[in-house]
Amino acid sequence: MAAFSDSDCAHMARALQLAARGQYSAHPNPMVGCVIVKNEDVVGEGWHEAAGNPHAEINALSKAGEDAHGATAYVTLEPCAHHGKTPPCVQALIDAGVARVIAAMKDPYAEVAGRGLEQLDNAGVVTEVGLMHSAAESLNAGFIARVTRGRPLVRVKVAASLDGAIAMKNRESQWITGAKARDDVQRLRARSGAIMTGIGTVLADDPSLNVRLKELATGGRQPLRVVLDSSLRMPLAAGMLTLPGATLICSTGNHDASALEAAGAEVYSFGPDGETIDVREVLEELARRGINDVLVEAGPGVAGYLLEKDLVDELVIYQAPHIMGSETMGMFSTPSWMALADRRALEITDLRRIGDDMRITARIRHQGTSD
Amino acid sequence: MAAFSDSDCAHMARALQLAARGQYSAHPNPMVGCVIVKNEDVVGEGWHEAAGNPHAEINALSKAGEDAHGATAYVTLEPCAHHGKTPPCVQALIDAGVARVIAAMKDPYAEVAGRGLEQLDNAGVVTEVGLMHSAAESLNAGFIARVTRGRPLVRVKVAASLDGAIAMKNRESQWITGAKARDDVQRLRARSGAIMTGIGTVLADDPSLNVRLKELATGGRQPLRVVLDSSLRMPLAAGMLTLPGATLICSTGNHDASALEAAGAEVYSFGPDGETIDVREVLEELARRGINDVLVEAGPGVAGYLLEKDLVDELVIYQAPHIMGSETMGMFSTPSWMALADRRALEITDLRRIGDDMRITARIRHQGTSD
Repeated sequence: MAAFSDSDCAHMARALQLAARGQYSAHPNPMVGCVIVKNEDVVGEGWHEAAGNPHAEINALSKAGEDAHGATAYVTLEPCAHHGKTPPCVQALIDAGVARVIAAMKDPYAEVAGRGLEQLDNAGVVTEVGLMHSAAESLNAGFIARVTRGRPLVRVKVAASLDGAIAMKNRESQWITGAKARDDVQRLRARSGAIMTGIGTVLADDPSLNVRLKELATGGRQPLRVVLDSSLRMPLAAGMLTLPGATLICSTGNHDASALEAAGAEVYSFGPDGETIDVREVLEELARRGINDVLVEAGPGVAGYLLEKDLVDELVIYQAPHIMGSETMGMFSTPSWMALADRRALEITDLRRIGDDMRITARIRHQGTSD
Repeated sequence: MAAFSDSDCAHMARALQLAARGQYSAHPNPMVGCVIVKNEDVVGEGWHEAAGNPHAEINALSKAGEDAHGATAYVTLEPCAHHGKTPPCVQALIDAGVARVIAAMKDPYAEVAGRGLEQLDNAGVVTEVGLMHSAAESLNAGFIARVTRGRPLVRVKVAASLDGAIAMKNRESQWITGAKARDDVQRLRARSGAIMTGIGTVLADDPSLNVRLKELATGGRQPLRVVLDSSLRMPLAAGMLTLPGATLICSTGNHDASALEAAGAEVYSFGPDGETIDVREVLEELARRGINDVLVEAGPGVAGYLLEKDLVDELVIYQAPHIMGSETMGMFSTPSWMALADRRALEITDLRRIGDDMRITARIRHQGTSD
């Protein structure tokens, strides 16, 4: 791998920053940023806003114009070599006379990884890959999860007291965390292609699961609402059915779904009636639909089940500065974890105050090597 | 109150830093630091190491020598005006010709507060008080609690998983937190005049509750070990009875304590047999014995009881980066807290990583206004 200079790093950092502007709008596409530099001057910048819109490279090239000739392009992801909704970026870079392309990472699709760089090489463009690849990979972790393992990234959000309680035993739980933490959850939702919950939560709380913060640039789209509801108990009066955006109800067997469908929901059957839904199948279906990131906002049953099945990639825990004591409900119901050895190790990736609350972001270390 | 200059602040910050050197050895005395400054040069520094040793002012004056004449003394606590184990510092400051004394806070003893400053005033020394008083008060929070309310500061330490579990239901709990967190607990112990636990923890875990880290400058002293043991079930074979330092067993009624006393323990009876010990009385007894800070290292029963009785001043929670799930024991058993309104609000005063774990330090907001 090439040795990169400080200036290379600075330009790639900027490209990553540009890429992140697409965090609420680019999905199902990856976020991509591009910076074009000639004689140490930035002559063009671009990022990918939404599917169907031009790619980051095209936006940056159009800013750079004639200056792209002989320049270096920093891109956070290997440029595409295929015709998708837009023409291939590789050809545009070659046509513009770009001399050197530095990509943070290869295309994660195994079948196409390296093809874009190879075509650039063949056209005499110097290529390098790997600069700041960890940051690039973590930016598009959901996209990478979908295309490499056929399941979205699963992020479980929990709001709890400092002693780990999410509600009293009598289910009292309103406003455990503060307004700033709730706004932060809006940003988590806007980053997600889908929000998943269980029918228990719908029946108890009638949640909206939508993006309400106007300043989040989602292009007006709402994440898909996914309800795990094996016996199809979803009420026709559920608030989410009246809101903009789609609702997918995951059920089993052949319940009569006509009334729910008339109310605007899609009902999809996973396996025979009376059996628990295999959430892995739900996640595979969501990946087929182009969902990169699933945010789980559910009760201890669904969240615990996902942990037990090792289907959780990331936890985002908001801890309120309160002690709620013992007459409470815990975060995760995990009846199969009977010994200390069953506990799941986390890697804390971020820790910060959000208003009066704390937010802990942690990756789950997966069991075995399948992921 | 006087306006203090940046240079005043810098000197007082240094005095507070010096005071903190006594954190493992000064108790039952307060930690005190002193900086003597003449024409902007520091001419003497001192701190109080241990009861019976010279006070901070005396140590600083002896460094300053002749230079103390006309100088300013920065002290973290009002200088003493009375003969204790050592002669009064006020007289020494006057005799040395100090021109100005700036104290961070008054003596917390209501009867003597202001007397030292008054005597200095009367001798023509300029006095000012209040510079960095919050830092000075929090440094000696335990000492202040003891002398103003007749009870030590009560600090409850908990080691838990990120979802609030301290052990599995089968009591498995070894090494929830890592080695650095355990070393940090050694520092908490060394700062404390007493470590309190319940007989349940003694019977289950046979804890040592001693200071083992050699680099902590405790002057060889060990905190008093306090066991809440209403029915006097303390085993003669308990490991702590064989260790340097004293053990106080708090019981009720008139159990035969002769064997335990022969094994080196003190047994003290609080109230009639068969009743629960009123921990408030235990704390008052500890205050009479000069204990400023009590560290509670106990199970959910004792810790929860103290929370329910509003006897906890500070929580120190070590959170390990693990999820332990639902088949576990929580931090606090609080059977009387049945509604969300019963939860206790915290003020997070410190949040940091300790090795792989997180440490959260929080003050408890006391109910009502009695404290």
